Amino acid sequence: MDKGLKIGVIGATGAVGGEFIQLFSKRNWNVQELRLLASPRSKGTTLNGPYGSLTVGTVEEGSFEGLDLALFSAGSDVSHSHCRKAAEAGCLVVDNSSAFRMDNDVPLVVPEINGHAIQSQHRLIANPNCSAIVLLMAVAPLRALGKIRRIIVSTYQSASGGGQKMMDSLLAQTQVFLRGEVGPHVETLHPYAFNLFSHNTPIGDDGMNGEEAKIVQETAKILEDTTIGVSATCVRVPVLRAHTESINVEFEGAAPDEDEIRAALDAFPGVRVVDDRENNLFPMPVLASGQDDVLVGRIRKDPSHPGAINMLACGDQLLKGAALNAVQIAELVLGR
Amino acid sequence: MDKGLKIGVIGATGAVGGEFIQLFSKRNWNVQELRLLASPRSKGTTLNGPYGSLTVGTVEEGSFEGLDLALFSAGSDVSHSHCRKAAEAGCLVVDNSSAFRMDNDVPLVVPEINGHAIQSQHRLIANPNCSAIVLLMAVAPLRALGKIRRIIVSTYQSASGGGQKMMDSLLAQTQVFLRGEVGPHVETLHPYAFNLFSHNTPIGDDGMNGEEAKIVQETAKILEDTTIGVSATCVRVPVLRAHTESINVEFEGAAPDEDEIRAALDAFPGVRVVDDRENNLFPMPVLASGQDDVLVGRIRKDPSHPGAINMLACGDQLLKGAALNAVQIAELVLGR
Repeated sequence: MDKGLKIGVIGATGAVGGEFIQLFSKRNWNVQELRLLASPRSKGTTLNGPYGSLTVGTVEEGSFEGLDLALFSAGSDVSHSHCRKAAEAGCLVVDNSSAFRMDNDVPLVVPEINGHAIQSQHRLIANPNCSAIVLLMAVAPLRALGKIRRIIVSTYQSASGGGQKMMDSLLAQTQVFLRGEVGPHVETLHPYAFNLFSHNTPIGDDGMNGEEAKIVQETAKILEDTTIGVSATCVRVPVLRAHTESINVEFEGAAPDEDEIRAALDAFPGVRVVDDRENNLFPMPVLASGQDDVLVGRIRKDPSHPGAINMLACGDQLLKGAALNAVQIAELVLGR
Repeated sequence: MDKGLKIGVIGATGAVGGEFIQLFSKRNWNVQELRLLASPRSKGTTLNGPYGSLTVGTVEEGSFEGLDLALFSAGSDVSHSHCRKAAEAGCLVVDNSSAFRMDNDVPLVVPEINGHAIQSQHRLIANPNCSAIVLLMAVAPLRALGKIRRIIVSTYQSASGGGQKMMDSLLAQTQVFLRGEVGPHVETLHPYAFNLFSHNTPIGDDGMNGEEAKIVQETAKILEDTTIGVSATCVRVPVLRAHTESINVEFEGAAPDEDEIRAALDAFPGVRVVDDRENNLFPMPVLASGQDDVLVGRIRKDPSHPGAINMLACGDQLLKGAALNAVQIAELVLGR
């Protein structure tokens, strides 16, 4: 990117917002202007970072004027109100909310998997659900080895999926627990210290919670394949910022060899195989946190089905699960 | 049990040992003598409980003389050395280790499921693996609704599976983490504070770790059915004492209705359905800890397969997963 970019970050005070700003710097973006926006509650907040001390403004009419890029991570309501207008004004918009993900005219993109879905007319691009990204980074490389028929995934999702507030709440609730006290569990529906719970999104008539439904729908759109069956169980665990997933993949016909799977994963950009049986070292949050790559390991045949394999994947929810993927989308479009 | 029982608890200073003693009292056992035994390291330790202050002795030749019942939870080595001898001396032995679980002459029993496997000649009975018990308490009731073909389970296992030391280590590591320090992770192969990791048992040539292999083998023995395919992924999460499991069950033919499943589970002794979609209340460690019942919920059709369903189960690893199940085995035999 030769010319300096004028960038808006919407949701700048959130956990993902903070990662956006770090990533511009880490990836040596040529930033000409950085406009930090958030809800009225955060107006006037000063954020210190790689671009100095910046004051946060509120999202208003005209907030996006003159911007080259707007990265939204302020929830679906804010996105519904502003994303399309910003895109119509000529700004490239990457939206981290679920507002437009399933809209036909909005590509839903993991650059390594379906970057081709972004065409020249697209100015609004949706960033997928974090659990879907981690899952698909582990699954998409396997399509080279055979037709995938079915995916069964159980997630071990971290607090960061609920934002900075949920991360802070996990730490605070744990402090209270360790003092032997019983405290309130703000920001979480259920106690979170040394506990886990089914993902706290509403349950539909089909029995799926919101997170599970997103994984099912977004998998079909991103893989451009409605024939793959997907079953997801989403669980929140007391981990700070990386999502782990136990994944069962069923192929048509016999499952590929474990070594073929490792090779296909290793060759895929953004994936790193961590599969050291001797040292019992596999993907886990302490290894994935702060890392760009999605880690995949525990690769093995499923003894219950000749066409199936099991694996564990773990990726930083704030990075590849959110900010990094959005930044990669912007790089893909702006670099064209 | 009319006459007073002479009971030996082997591994009395461990987490399961402590639960044994509590359970005798809670369940109003008529205890005539309580012999607490442990490794030489614990010799002379005094334990205070419902039977007063008792001094712990070491396991030696003659330790089991005159006992009616010996409950072993001191690891496979101790069990290998002493269980068969104690049983031959006429004592009823219930062993919580994996030493004899797959031996043909030793029944492996969850009383609600296969209590009938214990015949009059059996004096040594094996208590199953904790993850297998929680899984099978949720799965066995479903056999009334159709032939089960395949089970895919991902576990969220608590620290108590590694004993009191691992529970203490989780608390200590979390304290250190919250102070912003980096400390050693004794008792766990990997950092445990706000982290999770693949179950720390050795990986076999088939790619399964020890815990997963136990679930596969013990399921076949307890359900007396070698035709059911089982795929397990075992993960340790930073939770203190209840194991949660994400379970996919595939039936031959169409899956039963959700209400039929709830009814079958509710009617099964030792199982409680917790499946409140409106309030997003499902099985979780804070609900299951300290409880006898295995909780089952998130019951729903698997959208990826017409014959499959998903559910979440959670049970106290120290109770139904270990001490309670062993005590129930003893009650079953001694009450006959």
